[in-house]
Amino acid sequence: MKAVLLSLALLAPVAQATTIQHLEPAFWWAGMKEPKLQLMVHAKDIQQAQVQLNYPGVKVTGLQKVENPNYLFVDLELSPDVKPGRFELVFTQDGEIIARHHYSLLARQPGSAQRQGFSQKDLIYLITPDRFVNGDSANDEVKGLSEGLNRASPGGRHGGDIAGMQQALPYLQQLGVTQIWPQPLTENNSPAYSYHGYAATDLYKIDPRFGSNSDYKNFVAEAKKLGIGVIQDIVVNHIGSNHWWLKDLPEKSWLNYDASFHPTNHARTTVQDPYAAKVDAKAFVDGWFVDTMPDLNQRHPLLATYLIQNSVWWVEYANLSGIREDTYSYADKNFLTAWSKRLMSEYPNFNIVGEEWSANPVVVSYWQRGKQNSDGYQSFTPSMMDFPLYYALLAALTEEEAWDKGWVKLYEALGNDVIYPDPTNLVLFEGNHDTARIFSLLNEDRDLYQMAMIYLLTAPRIPQLYYGTEILKQSPKQRDDGLVRSDFPGGWPGDTVNAFSGQGLSKAQLQAQHLVRTLANYRKTNTVLQQGKMKHFSPVHGVYSYARYQGSRQVWVFFNKSTEARTVDLNRYLELMPANARFKEVLTGQTISTKGTLELPARSSLLLELQ
Amino acid sequence: MKAVLLSLALLAPVAQATTIQHLEPAFWWAGMKEPKLQLMVHAKDIQQAQVQLNYPGVKVTGLQKVENPNYLFVDLELSPDVKPGRFELVFTQDGEIIARHHYSLLARQPGSAQRQGFSQKDLIYLITPDRFVNGDSANDEVKGLSEGLNRASPGGRHGGDIAGMQQALPYLQQLGVTQIWPQPLTENNSPAYSYHGYAATDLYKIDPRFGSNSDYKNFVAEAKKLGIGVIQDIVVNHIGSNHWWLKDLPEKSWLNYDASFHPTNHARTTVQDPYAAKVDAKAFVDGWFVDTMPDLNQRHPLLATYLIQNSVWWVEYANLSGIREDTYSYADKNFLTAWSKRLMSEYPNFNIVGEEWSANPVVVSYWQRGKQNSDGYQSFTPSMMDFPLYYALLAALTEEEAWDKGWVKLYEALGNDVIYPDPTNLVLFEGNHDTARIFSLLNEDRDLYQMAMIYLLTAPRIPQLYYGTEILKQSPKQRDDGLVRSDFPGGWPGDTVNAFSGQGLSKAQLQAQHLVRTLANYRKTNTVLQQGKMKHFSPVHGVYSYARYQGSRQVWVFFNKSTEARTVDLNRYLELMPANARFKEVLTGQTISTKGTLELPARSSLLLELQ
Repeated sequence: MKAVLLSLALLAPVAQATTIQHLEPAFWWAGMKEPKLQLMVHAKDIQQAQVQLNYPGVKVTGLQKVENPNYLFVDLELSPDVKPGRFELVFTQDGEIIARHHYSLLARQPGSAQRQGFSQKDLIYLITPDRFVNGDSANDEVKGLSEGLNRASPGGRHGGDIAGMQQALPYLQQLGVTQIWPQPLTENNSPAYSYHGYAATDLYKIDPRFGSNSDYKNFVAEAKKLGIGVIQDIVVNHIGSNHWWLKDLPEKSWLNYDASFHPTNHARTTVQDPYAAKVDAKAFVDGWFVDTMPDLNQRHPLLATYLIQNSVWWVEYANLSGIREDTYSYADKNFLTAWSKRLMSEYPNFNIVGEEWSANPVVVSYWQRGKQNSDGYQSFTPSMMDFPLYYALLAALTEEEAWDKGWVKLYEALGNDVIYPDPTNLVLFEGNHDTARIFSLLNEDRDLYQMAMIYLLTAPRIPQLYYGTEILKQSPKQRDDGLVRSDFPGGWPGDTVNAFSGQGLSKAQLQAQHLVRTLANYRKTNTVLQQGKMKHFSPVHGVYSYARYQGSRQVWVFFNKSTEARTVDLNRYLELMPANARFKEVLTGQTISTKGTLELPARSSLLLELQ
Repeated sequence: MKAVLLSLALLAPVAQATTIQHLEPAFWWAGMKEPKLQLMVHAKDIQQAQVQLNYPGVKVTGLQKVENPNYLFVDLELSPDVKPGRFELVFTQDGEIIARHHYSLLARQPGSAQRQGFSQKDLIYLITPDRFVNGDSANDEVKGLSEGLNRASPGGRHGGDIAGMQQALPYLQQLGVTQIWPQPLTENNSPAYSYHGYAATDLYKIDPRFGSNSDYKNFVAEAKKLGIGVIQDIVVNHIGSNHWWLKDLPEKSWLNYDASFHPTNHARTTVQDPYAAKVDAKAFVDGWFVDTMPDLNQRHPLLATYLIQNSVWWVEYANLSGIREDTYSYADKNFLTAWSKRLMSEYPNFNIVGEEWSANPVVVSYWQRGKQNSDGYQSFTPSMMDFPLYYALLAALTEEEAWDKGWVKLYEALGNDVIYPDPTNLVLFEGNHDTARIFSLLNEDRDLYQMAMIYLLTAPRIPQLYYGTEILKQSPKQRDDGLVRSDFPGGWPGDTVNAFSGQGLSKAQLQAQHLVRTLANYRKTNTVLQQGKMKHFSPVHGVYSYARYQGSRQVWVFFNKSTEARTVDLNRYLELMPANARFKEVLTGQTISTKGTLELPARSSLLLELQ
């Protein structure tokens, strides 16, 4: 894309040939809500240039310099009625034209501003793209990108790509998935360990080993045809150490600690703890994860604008239905407010989910839009990853029952919803690329796995699966990234096991896949599970039960974790459940007629729809 | 007291001798803020009586009946300027006088309404009176009270009493104690296990085995002379099964579950969890602890008024500086609002601390005055027991350090203060009658014990000790009430060990007592620890450090839990601590001059006052 624009610029006669190396965003749209647009221009000694343009509804309102003379930031203002089209940016110095650059304002897609973000209606499927499906082996190795294919290494690149995700769309649709969240697809041109995507070297470019920008855009469009949205994984906290900026940094202060490595203390409470020392809060926010991930100083206003525009650009360009913001609290919190405010202002029905890795709901809730924080901090990020409920679910399923252990932890954790301004907009997950695989954490117990899947898909949350959970993917219990993110069977030519066709899957895997498919497709059309109220009953003797309900419609869940069968006295439920209720058992389709009691076999789950 | 009034009533000529068995409250005060007063009159067939009186500023505004004809509730209204004095209540039936009763309105003590409740200035000392000091062996066995002395039994009565607490006042004053919280002293006339006090059989009467009502009043007065306040332990949730009401219950609905035993489910979140089932909330609030503790239905308006007036009566009668409310959330929550509102309206500077046994600050904070709860629930109880911080302190001291274990738990728990409307008004304790002894929980490690005591007395909280902690009292780690509440040495004639004189205490015990005394007396006059701000630094390598500060005054605490010595780089603290600061080490009185570093021996604590 940039190459095309550069060639257009070169066609124009210039008095002095200044080559524009980068101009970002490369294009923009007419009719955005925010009238301002700031262009970063990177060219040798461009700092002193003046900029002119002649296009109705667009004016240059300012020029901003940084330490590095090779950068110029051009402030534009677009009128609300500016028309899509192309205009020329003319760069002059000492009265002479030194460069010309054609810039396009594109037409927005109809309804773009009003796009619907992911919501409780959805099921999100997280994919590690390099490990999912290798749809195009031609891009496994790409000239100019230092790390090539090494499928034998758990930390190497395995070749999965956008084409692979696209091929998998029918499978995902059938599975009941309605949103795909791929780990970051932007260029990560690092010499090693680049597959995960969290060390970007170009924030405007899809990594060619995954595909091109337009491949990505097409993938989103194809997914949309199947009713599936795409959530982009965006990282504003840090970049990769081979990012092109670093070869000619605009200003030292774009990176924290003046561009030198200083590790974060991971003390995430410091940015909200009223007693925290400033020195700790700084070490947390400004510290780097690792020396290969320079930490961005989002307090720099030009960098802040760059990052904000970059996020808006991807939403508009790729037609996203959401953003997942990585390592959320590690970024400057005032920047996060501005960033989320801008996105939600451009796209009022959009959704953003932040990752705050804490089991403490006090800490997580701080970041959700609408929270009345004691320090006055305000966020516009509508959703957060529900780490507290994830940990409570694991504890509930793996701990022996006691007054303070087991189910009661899940029961009480949900009660903590009072501290969230919008708890049903939180994303509950059964695992992600940084956790061990849930089937392993549940000691490969299929009864517990079934409970986890039912809970995930019936809790008053936005559910999120990690790829392969539906086929009982395993991992060490202690975090081991390479093994957690192992290849999806059937994603590579010659795979003897194929999760798409079912070939080679064990009976247990096929049953698990069937379970997830049944649950997800049930949930997909069930407004009770998508919007209904919640009522739960305190756990007794290993049995935890709850209902989702809406009007006269009710879906009931009964879990018996005990190794003994339990007879449940249904009188306890009469404040909601009709006497002698008839239910459809969702997983089997059978009808259950109750007469005061319900039989729960040992280690069983029941998902019941009131008839 | 009642006996005196009854005899006065009997002196008056009556047409028909109806004996008034109970009339409560037995007397009241002129000049209370609340003009209403409701008398409960218990006499055979009194229900049909009319009531007359003739006293300026007092009028009968209503008569209320219950199921039981032997009760009549008389509503009085007292004018703001009513004078102290005595008047006659004349009970008539069918135009004939059936009983007369003299009723007194006493003069309030000067400043009674404006009394100062316990606060962050204080150190509270919890006493199990039966186990502290037997000051009067004449009351060890009392005629009419079924349980006698059995010092050999851990669950029996050991003879401690009010006289004993009174004798101990100089010791407690020297120790630095400024508030005494005795477990309930009201009559507990149960056949067994009556010593703990939580099963009252008369809410207006001190148990004669502890002393009389006036002994109690005198004890409070004597304590006050030494600068020590008294906090009464009040139970509104339940009574003992030998309470006199039960022999002639006003109404079945005074007890929950129509006066039949139904155990509580202890599901304390049900009264605030937005998803909780009504059936669970009812079982929690209405359920009984045990069959010998009938659970009161505080929704009954007459009972509610009885309980509220009883609490006010004790504050005014005994001249209390606070109330500790037992098993707080088990009582009806709307009643608790009315109860706390009335107390704080009568005594605006008073303090009440509620016991909500939960490690979850979301749950505890729900009950504190000023909390903006999502369900709109409002409390007027200013303080709560800080169970969450207590558990965090134990974890901090006993867990091996890790990113999510040890000090970080205490560090992060304090950060949760944002969800309390008034965190510094919470009571932090190192133990109570229901926990194992802290020295035992800390594996009898004196270094950890020292850290616990320093934290308790320097944290931004109201600190509370349990009797005997200062001499390293031990217990099994698993709860064992009788052993936790063992006799205080020196409290009984013939004790060979005497904690008051120090005789027979081990060197370790003497050192512990000295430590507590030094800390408590330091805190007693140190406004920095009483009111100062808090700043803490994230734990590193087993070292946790913080400061309390006020203006230019600073008190610093450094804990090194590591088994290795640590050199602390003081550059980290320069946002608050002056460079090359000089400190007085509080425990030794030595001066420390720093030059950039501070040496912390292995397993050591430093408490430093900036010079």
